[in-house]
Amino acid sequence: MAKKGKNAISPTRQEDYAAWYQEVVKVSDMAENSPARGCMIIKPWGYAVWENITKELDRAFKERGVKNAYFPIFIPLRFLEAEAAHVEGFAKECAVVTHHRLEAGPDGGLVPAGPLTEPYIVRPTSETIIGEAFSRWINSYRDLPVLINQWANVVRWEMRTRIFLRTSEFLWQEGHTAHASADEAKQRTAMMLEVYRDFAENWLAMPVLAGEKTAAERFPGAESTFCIEAMMQDCKALQAGTSHFLGQNFAKASNIRFQSEKGAEEFAWTTSWGVSTRMIGGMIMTHSDDDGLVLPPRLAPAHIVLMPILKDPDSNQAVLEFVRTLSRRLSSIPYLNGHIRVEVDDRDMGGKNWDWIKKGIPLRVEIGPRDIAQNAVFVARRDKPPSERQSMDTEIFVSEVPIMLEEIQANLFDRAKAYREANTRDIDSKDDFYAWFTPKNAEKPEIHGGFALAHWCGSPQCEAKIKDDLTVTIRLVPENTDAQKGRCIVCDKASNQRVVFAKAY
Amino acid sequence: MAKKGKNAISPTRQEDYAAWYQEVVKVSDMAENSPARGCMIIKPWGYAVWENITKELDRAFKERGVKNAYFPIFIPLRFLEAEAAHVEGFAKECAVVTHHRLEAGPDGGLVPAGPLTEPYIVRPTSETIIGEAFSRWINSYRDLPVLINQWANVVRWEMRTRIFLRTSEFLWQEGHTAHASADEAKQRTAMMLEVYRDFAENWLAMPVLAGEKTAAERFPGAESTFCIEAMMQDCKALQAGTSHFLGQNFAKASNIRFQSEKGAEEFAWTTSWGVSTRMIGGMIMTHSDDDGLVLPPRLAPAHIVLMPILKDPDSNQAVLEFVRTLSRRLSSIPYLNGHIRVEVDDRDMGGKNWDWIKKGIPLRVEIGPRDIAQNAVFVARRDKPPSERQSMDTEIFVSEVPIMLEEIQANLFDRAKAYREANTRDIDSKDDFYAWFTPKNAEKPEIHGGFALAHWCGSPQCEAKIKDDLTVTIRLVPENTDAQKGRCIVCDKASNQRVVFAKAY
Repeated sequence: MAKKGKNAISPTRQEDYAAWYQEVVKVSDMAENSPARGCMIIKPWGYAVWENITKELDRAFKERGVKNAYFPIFIPLRFLEAEAAHVEGFAKECAVVTHHRLEAGPDGGLVPAGPLTEPYIVRPTSETIIGEAFSRWINSYRDLPVLINQWANVVRWEMRTRIFLRTSEFLWQEGHTAHASADEAKQRTAMMLEVYRDFAENWLAMPVLAGEKTAAERFPGAESTFCIEAMMQDCKALQAGTSHFLGQNFAKASNIRFQSEKGAEEFAWTTSWGVSTRMIGGMIMTHSDDDGLVLPPRLAPAHIVLMPILKDPDSNQAVLEFVRTLSRRLSSIPYLNGHIRVEVDDRDMGGKNWDWIKKGIPLRVEIGPRDIAQNAVFVARRDKPPSERQSMDTEIFVSEVPIMLEEIQANLFDRAKAYREANTRDIDSKDDFYAWFTPKNAEKPEIHGGFALAHWCGSPQCEAKIKDDLTVTIRLVPENTDAQKGRCIVCDKASNQRVVFAKAY
Repeated sequence: MAKKGKNAISPTRQEDYAAWYQEVVKVSDMAENSPARGCMIIKPWGYAVWENITKELDRAFKERGVKNAYFPIFIPLRFLEAEAAHVEGFAKECAVVTHHRLEAGPDGGLVPAGPLTEPYIVRPTSETIIGEAFSRWINSYRDLPVLINQWANVVRWEMRTRIFLRTSEFLWQEGHTAHASADEAKQRTAMMLEVYRDFAENWLAMPVLAGEKTAAERFPGAESTFCIEAMMQDCKALQAGTSHFLGQNFAKASNIRFQSEKGAEEFAWTTSWGVSTRMIGGMIMTHSDDDGLVLPPRLAPAHIVLMPILKDPDSNQAVLEFVRTLSRRLSSIPYLNGHIRVEVDDRDMGGKNWDWIKKGIPLRVEIGPRDIAQNAVFVARRDKPPSERQSMDTEIFVSEVPIMLEEIQANLFDRAKAYREANTRDIDSKDDFYAWFTPKNAEKPEIHGGFALAHWCGSPQCEAKIKDDLTVTIRLVPENTDAQKGRCIVCDKASNQRVVFAKAY
């Protein structure tokens, strides 16, 4: 952890992790709370990260045959009611549109008018309204599979909100597919989970565990829910993406039927899968430090900031020209699916360097008259302490930029993975388990052990006891791990597998 | 107009233009109505056009210094009330969120619960909520200009809806900028109108007139509204984009103040500008014919469909291989900012050719065993009659694809421009004016003259009379035209300029 200087984030992660996070979001200029309760304003620096996320995920979806479409934001009440578990899960916290006009009220202010015969809810997710469309689009096995994705805003009326992590309105993508067989739908569920895992690790530089949710943690209406889970720096888990095998539940609720190759009428098998702006919160909490935001280069809105040092009127012009030429050169260097993204900060003021540290830009480059004389630049990397800067020959710097960015990307991933591993433990005794999740310091109840890999018999009762006692949940049942005999951490009954227990966002 | 065949659209444009349009939208698989009143489902073929529109416009905005951000979908009622003209314009038709929960009602169904202390409206446009953010972001002239754009969905509770053209929910971009001077804000207003004009003409292939709206047609709360207007094939005008100079009206309503360079506290000058999915409706109505959709190549989801002719089991394999190789070659040809987009339709069924005609794909290519023997392909262009097809040497075809696409693009524009010119007239007598806008056929009240360039004295009374008598409005006051003396078409008073009168969507 970098030494705390006068420009560092206050409080630090150790002092108050939740307040540290809010402060990082604020000083990096990523987003802010809005006057609409629980809704955020995503500012340009934050939105550019979302644009980069959407670009890459969209490419991955399209490579897998998925096409984008757009469905209404309003869901008629009766649609939500069609799937019993689904309505139970989503009716509790939703925005309800009841009127379609405003008119002057008795005290002169505006009041709702034009009551609707049937209220609409603002979509919390779109299984029901997309299901209705699928029921019309699908008639024969020849129409299958249908592979649709939607980039959209959704609303869940959350009581306690935290910017990016849990907001009343958020941006996301929701994939919805329909298939002729359960197997094919299950394969698609797994395929999209793998897209998320790959993206989280290789773009967000955020190591994740992948696996299946228990029945208690499933998406309302799903047969099975799969997820990726990451560890934040307070050792809590963040669910960063989910992929659901919906069986025939929603096909039955929405009447999605098709004539099979053999001529029989069958219900389709559907899936849904989504990631949201929450990923940005996970990225921030995974990499940032007490100096502010740290951005993985692959998703950074800009890779490099060039900061001319303008102290001497005689040389200012030459410095600015050098910087502009360098900026053009750097911007033409290919990197990933595009080019190096460069910012030039020629504001005539102090504190520029710290502004960019807090904004998490991967490379900061200072250029003054003395550097130019040597055809050199002064380079600092955001994955190193602010004091660790080096003079580099300009030609070498230009040729090494993509390599340095990929190094930073790899460093961030490795560091986060080492952190997770250091804070994950196989636990076999109930006492150790309870001790692991009990805060060592009563003043900082959030600081606890981390992830526990422990045996679980499979009973909802044992799962519920842990949740009641420790606010710890089973984050996932890992996939593709060797069976391992053991005894349930709660009831001591036989178990075949360790599952991941953690406190969670 | 193409001869009506059994696969043509029914009714034709002549028979019933409105019904023809609905049918084109349907058979091309662009979009459909949804169970949420007045909201549309944009299907993959239609959404891909929107993706292409957003990609190009987003590039143009960013080149002009605009950054994307995202603001809440919910606007607190008091925000809307802050600007008097604005609330008057938008309160009449908006979705009002009054509750944040559903619970079981007396008859078992769900009823709204958890009433909100202050209702929210679903944004019909975001001047007020973005203005509140600007009031916090802007303190000094150094913070200006602020140049923000948002890609979002908005809701206006329209009574009569028509897919793409007027829907309760639609997708759009809304740009919002703040400046230190009126001049700079006016320049930005004009700059963005020019972006729209250029995009409409060079990408949608839709010729437009650009100019200023009269006071009666202004955006609620604006000082001046500029627009682009296109002529549809029923000779009615479609407003396809608007750019507003808001003066200090919204800055005063939202308290956007800054300290000027001279140290004085001043209100900022703001602009807003937007285009929406309505553009897709305009594109469809401008180019399509009685055989279905016609797509301008630059925005087409796919440029070419390859249709292997699979009639002979002996040659099918060779034909498929030839087609796959050709598809790979074509897909690697650069075109505009990307590559040629190719579809392969190897379905074993009749009617494929007509499916693609109706979907408006620019080039259709049939390939059978005889073509392969001659290394030839059978090519049809969507801007020519379906019967006009030609055999081309494969190598020549491959090398000419980008040229042919640009030819089609230019043809569509030229054709639409000629149509507009043929249906636009300078009119100087009141009788001629009324005759121009009076339907020749009582059974087809929609068929009338077209655009009239006529003198107008500038009085709202004369403007209102024309609207009352003929449902004709002043679409715009053209810019940069030479002053021309004349007499108002209504009151015969002196006038310095002709304005554009038309019936409008």
